[in-house]
Formats: sequence, C-alpha cells, structure tokens
Amino acid sequence: MSTLRITKGHGTGNDFVLFADPEGELAPGADELARLADRRFGVGGDGTIRAVRSAHLPEGAAALAEDAGTEWFMDYRNADGSPAEMCGNGIRVYVDYLIREGLLELAVGETVPIGTRAGVRPVTRLADGYEVDLGAYTVADGDVTVAADGLDVDRPGLGVDVGNPHIVVALADEDELTDLDLRRAPGLSPAPAEGANVEFVVPADPLVEAGTGRIRMRVHERGVGETLSCGTGAAAAALATREWAGDGAPDAWRVSVPGGELGVRISDGHVLLSGPAELVFDADI
Amino acid sequence: MSTLRITKGHGTGNDFVLFADPEGELAPGADELARLADRRFGVGGDGTIRAVRSAHLPEGAAALAEDAGTEWFMDYRNADGSPAEMCGNGIRVYVDYLIREGLLELAVGETVPIGTRAGVRPVTRLADGYEVDLGAYTVADGDVTVAADGLDVDRPGLGVDVGNPHIVVALADEDELTDLDLRRAPGLSPAPAEGANVEFVVPADPLVEAGTGRIRMRVHERGVGETLSCGTGAAAAALATREWAGDGAPDAWRVSVPGGELGVRISDGHVLLSGPAELVFDADI
Repeated sequence: MSTLRITKGHGTGNDFVLFADPEGELAPGADELARLADRRFGVGGDGTIRAVRSAHLPEGAAALAEDAGTEWFMDYRNADGSPAEMCGNGIRVYVDYLIREGLLELAVGETVPIGTRAGVRPVTRLADGYEVDLGAYTVADGDVTVAADGLDVDRPGLGVDVGNPHIVVALADEDELTDLDLRRAPGLSPAPAEGANVEFVVPADPLVEAGTGRIRMRVHERGVGETLSCGTGAAAAALATREWAGDGAPDAWRVSVPGGELGVRISDGHVLLSGPAELVFDADI
Repeated sequence: MSTLRITKGHGTGNDFVLFADPEGELAPGADELARLADRRFGVGGDGTIRAVRSAHLPEGAAALAEDAGTEWFMDYRNADGSPAEMCGNGIRVYVDYLIREGLLELAVGETVPIGTRAGVRPVTRLADGYEVDLGAYTVADGDVTVAADGLDVDRPGLGVDVGNPHIVVALADEDELTDLDLRRAPGLSPAPAEGANVEFVVPADPLVEAGTGRIRMRVHERGVGETLSCGTGAAAAALATREWAGDGAPDAWRVSVPGGELGVRISDGHVLLSGPAELVFDADI
C-alpha cells in the first residue's frame, strides 16, 4: 500500500478503520492492517473493514457469496490483523460506508445481504440506523459459575450462542454494575473450550415499558478486555434476560451499553440487532 | 467549530491531535478538545495541540511570550481537555507540524524558542528529529519507597524534577521490567503532594558504550496509567541513572521506551531531550 484513503467510523463506540478495495487488488497483509488499527502509530480502531466485492474473493468464498446473491463482502479483521467472522456493530458501519461511497443504493426499509466469514447477514436500513439479522441463536440449559473483581460472591451465568459464544450474568442493581472491575477477565467454571464474551446485566425499573424490555450492560470481550459496546453481546444479554423473565417476556429490547444504545428484536427464531452508525472522518494514509 | 482540519502525529508513540489557529480565533472548549482526543468517538490522542501565535494569547501570557521573542505558543491540553504545562514528546511533533504547514522556517541545526505554559522552551532541528532544552533540573537527596504489582519487594525511588515531578526506580534486569504490572499506580511512601510519574529502569549491558549511557524504561504517568513513552520521564530516568553511576558517568544517554528511543543530554546544568516526530495523517472533522 502506498497512499490509502480510509474512513474512521463507529457504532456505539465500537470503532473501525474502513477502506474500499472493490476489485480485490490491495490484499494488505496482517502487519499493514494491524498498523492501520494501531491507536498511536496508525489511525486506530477495534478492527479494520475492507470493502470488497464478493466476486473478487478467493474462489471458494466467492462461489458461496454469489449463490446467496451478495455483491459485497465484509472483510473484517481484528486489531491485530487476524481475520474475524462477524461484528454486529461493524456491519452497520460497513453498510453506511458503502452507501456514502456510492458503492450501494439502499433506501430506508430496504434490505441488502452482506457476505461475512460467518455466512450471509441481511442488513436493513432504518430511519436512524441499521438492523442486522444475526440468525438463529441457542440458549444453554445449564449455568456456568462466573467470578469477577468487584463481585462479592460468584454468580451463575447463562450461555447464549448468537454465532459466537457469550455468558450472561444478572446483577442486582446499578451499584453492582458500577463497582465491577473488568480489567481482568472474569473467571468461568467450567471454562468454555473457546472462551466467551461475558455480559453483566442490570434490569431497568420497570423492566418492561410500553412492551419493550430494557436492560443496561457492561461487557468483557475475550482476548480484548472491557469495551464500550459489543453488538452480539447486547443480543445475548437481551436473550438471557428474556429467558429469565419467562412466559410473556417481550420480543423487543433496548440495551444500554457504555457507548450508547442498541435494539434487539426476536422474530421467527432469529435475533436481530439494530443501532446507529457514524462515519467520523476521512484521511489519506 | 464546524469543520476543522486536523493532523495526527506522534513522538515515540506518545500521540497528539494538532490543529492550526494562528490568529487565536477558534478557542475550542474543553468538551470539544476532549471529543477530538477521544479514541473511539473522535480522532484519538494522548492530548491536543493548538498552534497559536503568542501575540494572540490572553494579554498576560502574550506579553511574557513576546518578551522572550517566541512567535509560536504550544497550547497543549490533556485528553480530557484540561490545560497542561509542557510535553517533551509533544513539542517535537509541534515544531515538525509548524514547519510542514509552512508556519515556521527552521533549517537543520537552527533553534526556535517555543512558548509553553511552563515557560519558553528552545527547540533545535536535528537531521533525524528535534531536541528540546528542558532547562534546569533537580535530583532529590533522599529516597521514596516504591511498591508495584509484580515486584517481590518494595524498592527505593529517586525523586527527579525536570519541570514536573518523577520518581525513578532501578530494577535488576529485563525480566523484572517485563514482569511489572503497571495497570495499577505504583504506591509511593511518603506520597509526593502532587503525585509523580514513576519510571522503572534497567541498565543495558554494558551500561556505557562509546561514551553514551544506555538504559531501558517503562513508565506510569500520574492520572493516566502506563504509556508507550514519556519524554520528561526519559530525561528523569537518565538523570537518576547518572546520579547512581557516580563520578565519570556520561552526559549523553540513549533511553529505550516501549514506543521507541529517545536521547538525553546534560549540558551547562540543563537537560536536553531529543527524538523523532512523525505526522501520520490529516483529516477534516
């Protein structure tokens, strides 16, 4: 890469460095992407997103993507340059970027299928953001024991899988949530084989208002630490709380995270995540 | 501020958002500056630097600056928008920015006086960076006791003042330096009234090569946490090591920090800090 036009964007404080490579000609290495995501030596972000047409992906992935009619693939990488499957906040920012760059036309209410390493994800444009269909989910039928700095006693955690694994822990009140110290990873027993993101959740009072459930959460992402927002974590937190609430619990949720607010909706066995997307600045690097 | 042209720069990984306000017309508030320095919602940096002519400062400061013949003032703010006195890494990036923007002409070997809240600081352009004269320094004649996570026993720390207060601790070897956990602030006893940055230092083997002393350090900055580099901290670390080495210790030092390498030189009772300056990208925000 010599000069590259990049855009910095975020969804509820989960931030990304985006760039367009429609014909798949750039193929930057992991080192270059890590440098781009470096907050002091580069632009800085939780990850990078390369906008590439599915037709220009390596053969196998391209064929899969074409079967599903996805023009655009989200080549999402972690901050260290390693490939990642999906990012619930990143995909909203990605679609907003495609529209702003003139690479995609999408009216409010319309849906576009986006290719990701986790499969095809339909994204719908809303008046004030985007909604992504995260697909089917599973809620575990046993608890995991969770220990965390700032918690007086260990708590039970509920396993939720929404394409990636989560453990959700209910706390008693806002004070417990505030007092949590998530600089160290929570201890999980038994420990899931591939680790898990851990969400700590407090219900609003009342929990349900105008048919919508309301919770507040903080999250520790595996291998990363505490973050301002985790899209799939918000979905998992809503699903777990809905499970605990039992019969008659709502299908629509508002989840407050340190970086903003997300919406979660359950429909036909799928979980859908909605929220804002912001493009902050462009730069040549 | 509507649209603002900013430049992101860093010196050995200590990073800044710079912008030009030569005639002092912008006067952004602390909130706006904090937003600019925010790593997820803004551009991101350890602080912001406004380039303003000394003549356009509030009256008192302007008069002081004009007496000293300083055309340019470095309006440095911490990441939270609060005013800061000086920044040894920031001032090199600042002068590099002034030159690149055509606001200052400075040939290699020439020196320009820069106004800061800590007073006037002369900066000399080198072939591969800049050197700033930090002025007079003082080394304390008693020790402070320092406790830190990862250290088996408390260690003595030497107080060094180079315009801001430092405590320097000698460690035995690289392993001790690596094992330090600086997520929590080191404990100081007795605690200095205004706190202090704490530097942990390991000598290279040999300590002195070709007349130059060589050390490696990590730093915990008060109110911030561990950083990749602290310019005044590197100066303090070299001064403390020189003190410990006793008679015949060199006046020139190379200090390796996690973000790169800095030079420290003692001359006529002043300590001078040298190092690189990098401008990474420009953006409209």
